Amino acid sequence: MQSPRREALDLSTENKNGNMVVTPWEVSGEIDYNKLIERFGTQPLTQELKERIAKKAGFMHVQLRRDVFFSHRDLDWWLNQYDAGRPVGLYTGRGPSGHVHLGHLLPWFFCKYLQEAFDAHLYFQMTDDEKFLLRDDLTLDQTIGYTYDNALDVIACGVKPGLTHIFSDTEHIQHIYKLGLQVSKRITFSTVKAVFGFTDSDNIGLTWYPALQAMTCFLQSYREGRNVACLIPAAIDQDNYWRMTRDIAEKMGYYKPTQIHNKFLPPLTQGGKMSASQPDAAIFTTDTPELAAKKVMGAFTGGRETVKLQNELGGRPEICNIYAYYFYLFEEDDAKLAEIEKQCRSGALVCGDCKARLAKMVKVFLVDFQEKREKAKARLDDYLLK
Amino acid sequence: MQSPRREALDLSTENKNGNMVVTPWEVSGEIDYNKLIERFGTQPLTQELKERIAKKAGFMHVQLRRDVFFSHRDLDWWLNQYDAGRPVGLYTGRGPSGHVHLGHLLPWFFCKYLQEAFDAHLYFQMTDDEKFLLRDDLTLDQTIGYTYDNALDVIACGVKPGLTHIFSDTEHIQHIYKLGLQVSKRITFSTVKAVFGFTDSDNIGLTWYPALQAMTCFLQSYREGRNVACLIPAAIDQDNYWRMTRDIAEKMGYYKPTQIHNKFLPPLTQGGKMSASQPDAAIFTTDTPELAAKKVMGAFTGGRETVKLQNELGGRPEICNIYAYYFYLFEEDDAKLAEIEKQCRSGALVCGDCKARLAKMVKVFLVDFQEKREKAKARLDDYLLK
Repeated sequence: MQSPRREALDLSTENKNGNMVVTPWEVSGEIDYNKLIERFGTQPLTQELKERIAKKAGFMHVQLRRDVFFSHRDLDWWLNQYDAGRPVGLYTGRGPSGHVHLGHLLPWFFCKYLQEAFDAHLYFQMTDDEKFLLRDDLTLDQTIGYTYDNALDVIACGVKPGLTHIFSDTEHIQHIYKLGLQVSKRITFSTVKAVFGFTDSDNIGLTWYPALQAMTCFLQSYREGRNVACLIPAAIDQDNYWRMTRDIAEKMGYYKPTQIHNKFLPPLTQGGKMSASQPDAAIFTTDTPELAAKKVMGAFTGGRETVKLQNELGGRPEICNIYAYYFYLFEEDDAKLAEIEKQCRSGALVCGDCKARLAKMVKVFLVDFQEKREKAKARLDDYLLK
Repeated sequence: MQSPRREALDLSTENKNGNMVVTPWEVSGEIDYNKLIERFGTQPLTQELKERIAKKAGFMHVQLRRDVFFSHRDLDWWLNQYDAGRPVGLYTGRGPSGHVHLGHLLPWFFCKYLQEAFDAHLYFQMTDDEKFLLRDDLTLDQTIGYTYDNALDVIACGVKPGLTHIFSDTEHIQHIYKLGLQVSKRITFSTVKAVFGFTDSDNIGLTWYPALQAMTCFLQSYREGRNVACLIPAAIDQDNYWRMTRDIAEKMGYYKPTQIHNKFLPPLTQGGKMSASQPDAAIFTTDTPELAAKKVMGAFTGGRETVKLQNELGGRPEICNIYAYYFYLFEEDDAKLAEIEKQCRSGALVCGDCKARLAKMVKVFLVDFQEKREKAKARLDDYLLK
């Protein structure tokens, strides 16, 4: 069901013959983030803005330092609201169609960081209705099952109970349907055709669903009966929703939602996609540490064909997926990361050793994360929308 | 918003230049019920079927005797299910966009009759979401307000607590959303375009809504975890929904819903519409008895211009709205009705006297109905879907 929709999305694809595809349903090809900023009409994240966030947080998050978050829309205004003592909130979400992989965790870890820095409520939407409506191979029971499974990952990221409101579109519909209706009355089928590439052959559930993803931008305001400035930390593929929502926000008496966009964690395999259908391309939080280590050891790297060539020519961290994992997630120490890069380029570090080092770190990470995930089971209810 | 949609509905309009319009959004013009049977592909209600119902009920309801219910689809099969000891249920509903008038009560009284005869559960849907999405002049708070107001009328018709489940699309969405999603996944935008005349300019809430009206056909089966044969007593203008639902029922593992269709109570005024925008054309259950009597006294009749002419030529009950009120609702005694007709045609009965007699009956009815309505306030919760 995805290809025809992708074709229609001139706004968010590189071009019909190009190989970069960034839509809410598909991300593939070589991503040019500067082009996305241009295409989506967003702003690059400036040093000044990063420092404004770091000042509140007490430190600059590795994802800011390394431009994993690279683009925004009206983040300055959101920060101004906070500085002026006005209420601010956070919103992100997940399409629960399978287990969570490390790429999904990037914005969730960042949400935890922002939640602490700004003492902000986080509304976390599980779009189990959309995943069911979109995918012929998923039942509603399955997507709802993944909602509760994936919620454990959100909690394991360290978000706070009381300030975090995880909700399922289907299981918490009584809290969101009325606001969804208010939104849907202001969005025509023409609009969702233009924004998402829907056609007359799409089902009427799927064409209704954007109202619910848009609704969450206003949910905290709606529940608190006052206007709360909403910031959405999320991968840039969801941007279509926010452009549409910004168009109707003021007509509904709400602030336009603001965004901060992160890059995608690359797949472990060359040209692979981080999805449940290509399990070797991603490390899932439910993988055993041993399986995860095995995936790391089998990953595509920027290394040369032989150790001899590697020693002579050096590796290429810029195309190396192992290096990307250090960069995005596992080596927060800038000096150590620089050392890896230097030794790789010099040829002193060979891929086997480099992978083994990462595999060990991934195992340590997973053991810890899975312990937190396990503990989250008993505390789940504290994090659900009431 | 109604005219363009009406134009597109070739199936349910007489023709584009004709004056009979029967759609879920509009009923107007001279209704030819035989043509509707032909156009909608339904069956006329036979004497045999009426007698099968009467046998279970212990008496034949006036609305059967007088062909107020005139058409059906698979009623014989529904009765066979009952006779075979299999579960049967009832479904009807209301679009809560204002107060209830006497025309709305026709199928509700009939539901009470069927509920008693077949000891059947009645699912009663209040489509407050649709009315909000359709009408620019109504807020969601207003349509929800009418849901609770109109529910009092349903209860005042005498339906049974325990067997009656009144629900609001918005207030009880948690009970119906998942089933609605299952339905919506099987209905494309093309289908709702063809069936209801929606266009790309319609909002995505309105184009989603048919999934919820269809869903109720399966709601009892879904809740009970077994297949229950569903009969929908309702005015024939809602038929588009059931044709669409019948197409997907078996794919979902449910029985096709069956229908029994009633005629429309004519308006009191000539060429008027029974709606809140033409308050003199209808008697609302919330009208004071005095106001209702006044409306009756001002009604269009089949009488002649002067008493002298009336005495000479006689009246014309076939075009008389006062006679229609006796026929549909207020004179259940066939002998007395025949006497009214005879005296009218002979010229012995003049309109003033005939109206005064009806006005008195309407007043008596309203006093009693409003007392029941008032009592229903304390018992409302017993009738709501849990």
